[in-house]
Amino acid sequence: MRRCYFDHAATNPLLTEVFESMIPYFKDEYGNPLSVYDLGTNARRAIEIAREQAASLINAKPSTIVFTSSGAEANNFALRGIALARQNQGRHIIVSKVEHHSILNSARFLEKNGFVVTYLPVDKYGFIDLDVLKKSITKETILISMTLASSEIGTIEPIKELAAIAKERNVIFHTDAVASAGNIPVDVKELGVDLLSMAAHQFYGPKGAGALYIKEGLRIVPLIYGGIQEGGRRAGTENVPAIVGMGKAAELARKEMPQRIEHVRRLRDKLIDGVLKIPNVYLTGHPENRLPYHASFVVEFIEGEAMLLMLSMKGIYAASGSACSSKALKSSPILLSIGIPSALAQGSIVFSLGIDNTDEDLDYFIAEFPNVISRLREMSPFAKGWGEGSEGEKCYTG
Amino acid sequence: MRRCYFDHAATNPLLTEVFESMIPYFKDEYGNPLSVYDLGTNARRAIEIAREQAASLINAKPSTIVFTSSGAEANNFALRGIALARQNQGRHIIVSKVEHHSILNSARFLEKNGFVVTYLPVDKYGFIDLDVLKKSITKETILISMTLASSEIGTIEPIKELAAIAKERNVIFHTDAVASAGNIPVDVKELGVDLLSMAAHQFYGPKGAGALYIKEGLRIVPLIYGGIQEGGRRAGTENVPAIVGMGKAAELARKEMPQRIEHVRRLRDKLIDGVLKIPNVYLTGHPENRLPYHASFVVEFIEGEAMLLMLSMKGIYAASGSACSSKALKSSPILLSIGIPSALAQGSIVFSLGIDNTDEDLDYFIAEFPNVISRLREMSPFAKGWGEGSEGEKCYTG
Repeated sequence: MRRCYFDHAATNPLLTEVFESMIPYFKDEYGNPLSVYDLGTNARRAIEIAREQAASLINAKPSTIVFTSSGAEANNFALRGIALARQNQGRHIIVSKVEHHSILNSARFLEKNGFVVTYLPVDKYGFIDLDVLKKSITKETILISMTLASSEIGTIEPIKELAAIAKERNVIFHTDAVASAGNIPVDVKELGVDLLSMAAHQFYGPKGAGALYIKEGLRIVPLIYGGIQEGGRRAGTENVPAIVGMGKAAELARKEMPQRIEHVRRLRDKLIDGVLKIPNVYLTGHPENRLPYHASFVVEFIEGEAMLLMLSMKGIYAASGSACSSKALKSSPILLSIGIPSALAQGSIVFSLGIDNTDEDLDYFIAEFPNVISRLREMSPFAKGWGEGSEGEKCYTG
Repeated sequence: MRRCYFDHAATNPLLTEVFESMIPYFKDEYGNPLSVYDLGTNARRAIEIAREQAASLINAKPSTIVFTSSGAEANNFALRGIALARQNQGRHIIVSKVEHHSILNSARFLEKNGFVVTYLPVDKYGFIDLDVLKKSITKETILISMTLASSEIGTIEPIKELAAIAKERNVIFHTDAVASAGNIPVDVKELGVDLLSMAAHQFYGPKGAGALYIKEGLRIVPLIYGGIQEGGRRAGTENVPAIVGMGKAAELARKEMPQRIEHVRRLRDKLIDGVLKIPNVYLTGHPENRLPYHASFVVEFIEGEAMLLMLSMKGIYAASGSACSSKALKSSPILLSIGIPSALAQGSIVFSLGIDNTDEDLDYFIAEFPNVISRLREMSPFAKGWGEGSEGEKCYTG
C-alpha cells in the first residue's frame, strides 16, 4: 500500500545525509565535548560547526545560539528565563491565543508564580492585531511571545511589525519559530526579534535537538543548571550526534529552501483544491499567507480522530491538530480562538507536506479522501442533510 | 598509538548493539509517538519497552520513569519540581557538599528564590554523616538530595540509611545516581528513595537520554511544560532513538553487571596499586567503598591539567575532576570539602575505567604514568624536595 506521510508538522523523516553526518559521533568520536584531549576537542569542534550552521539558517551570530533538547525546551527556557531575569522591571507577559502548548503552559506556570499574562485574541484567520498588541502593553510588560506560524492553522504572523511594537516600548520579544524555521526564510535581524525557538526534527533533522536564539547581550536565567556547557546557559552533557545532525539539516535547509518551498507549495495547493471540492469542508487559517507546506481544514459532521484512523488504514497519515495534544480529546483552543464553533472544531484535520511527498501521493489522496468523508458521514448521526451544503467556500468565516 | 580511554565518568563509548537498536528509529520508524497512526504507535510502543527496560535496571515500575534529555535535566527537575510542589509545607532543602554541579547550582537557584539550603559537610572520605543529617532536618525541611556516588571521588554514600532518616522525618529524598546507575546495583525499593536520576551515556547508552524515577503518587511540578508527553510531566517531542538506546543499554547493563563490575574492579585495583607506588600521590575518596570503575588521586607539586595533556599525548585519556567543570580552572569544591588543601587539589586526576579497557591498557599506563609525573615535577617550581615523600600512604589523610 502507498504510504502518504502528510504529517510533517508532527515530525519529519530524517534525511539520509543528515543521519550519515551523525554516525561518526555515535561511533569513534564519542568524547565529552568538555574533555581536554582530542576526543573531547573533536566533539567540541563539531558542536561549534553545527552552531555556525544553525546560526546561518536564521542569519544570526553563532554565539547567539544555545542548543536545547527540543523546541518545547527552547520555548520554556525563553519564557521562564526572561521572566526571571526581568521580574524586577515588571511582571506582565503577553502571548497570543494561537501559541503552542509549550508557550501557553509555560505562561500558565508563570501566572501561578506571580506573573500576569494577557492572552491576545486573533481574527478569523488567526492573525494577531497590531493595535490590540499596542493597547495591551503596560509599564509592567517585560515579555511578548508570539508564534511565527501556528502548526495548527498555518497562518504566518506579522512578526516584524509585532516585534517593532515591542522594541518601541522596550519590551523583549520572543517568537516560536518551531514550525517555520528551516521551512520558510527566517532572519532574526530582519524580524527584529530578541529570542527565537527552533527544532531540528521540523526540518528533516533529528529529534532531540532544538535551539534558542538569544540576542547578544540579553540576560536570561537558565532552565537547566549544572556544568559550563553552552556558555553556562544550558547544562547537561551535549547530545553531540543530534547537535551535529541539526547543523547539517540547517545547512541543507538553507541551501535547498527555494526548491523545497516550491515543491511543497505546489503539492499543497493541489491538496487544497482537491479537498475544497468536498461539500461542507472549510480551510482554516489564512488562504495565502500561510506555511507553504500546510493545509488545515474543518470537516462538518465528522470527528477528526475518525478521519485520521480511516485515512491511516489507507496509508494516509495526517493530524487532527498539534501532535502534542492529539490524545487530549478536547476542541483545539486555537480553532476556538479563530471563531470555529466547538462542534465543528471536532472535525479538524491538518495536512502538512514534505519534500518526500510526490504528485502520485496527492493524486491517491484526492481520490480517496472524499470516500472517507462520505463513509464517515453515512455513519454519523449529525450528518443528516449535509448534502445540502455547497462547495466553494474557501474559508470558514463564522 | 594505543588509546587508553580512562574517562568513562565523562562519557562512555556507545555499544554497537545499542546503536543498532536505535537505527530503525532514525530511518523508517520516524513517527511522532503521539500520532494515532502506525508510525506513531510503533514509536510509542518502542518508548514503553525502553521504559520497562530502564525501570528494571533500578527495580522500579515503568510508570515511575520519566525520560529526560540528560542526568542534569533529571537533577534540575527533581530539585525544582519538588521544591515548587512542596513550598507550602516548608522552604528548607538539604544537599551535600559532594554533589554534582547540576545539584549544587539548582540549589543555589532555589536559594535565590526564597528557599534555604543547607550544604552538609562530609568526612575525609567524602561520607555524609548520618547524625549530621539528622541534626540538620528542621520542620521546614521538604527535600534532601544526596549523590549515590560522586564521580569525582568515587565514594559510595550510605543512601539507604540517609533515605531512612528522611522518611522518618517525612522529608522527600532524592539521589543523583548518574555516576552509579547501570554501573553498580541500584534498587530504588531497597534504597527507599523517592526520586533518582540517571543518564544513559554513563552505561554505554547514547547521549541525550536520561531519566528521573519518581515514586508512585509523588507530586512534582514539571521543568518543561507543553504537550502531554511523559504523562504531562515532561514535554517536548520524545527523542525516540535515544530513549530506545537507553532502554537497550539498561537491559544490557542489568544482564552483564556482575561480569562488568568484576572486570573494571580488577583493572581499577591494578591501576591503584600501580599509581600508589609513585611517591607523593594520594588516593582520594574511600579506598574500598567506592565505584568499582573509579580511581581518583591528588598528585603533589603538579597541576592536573598538565598531567591530562601529557597523558593525552601518550593516548591516555583521563580527567581532572568532573567534565562539566574541567574548563572552569578552580580547585574542586568536592576535594576541598574532604579536606584536601587547595594547592594539592590542583593536582587532581581521575581515572574511570570501562568494559572496553584491557590489561594491556593498564600495563601501558602503569609503565608511562611515573614518567609523566617525573617529567612534570622536573619542570615544576613547587616540586623541590618531592623525592623526600614516601610511597605507601594509601589515602590523603590531611
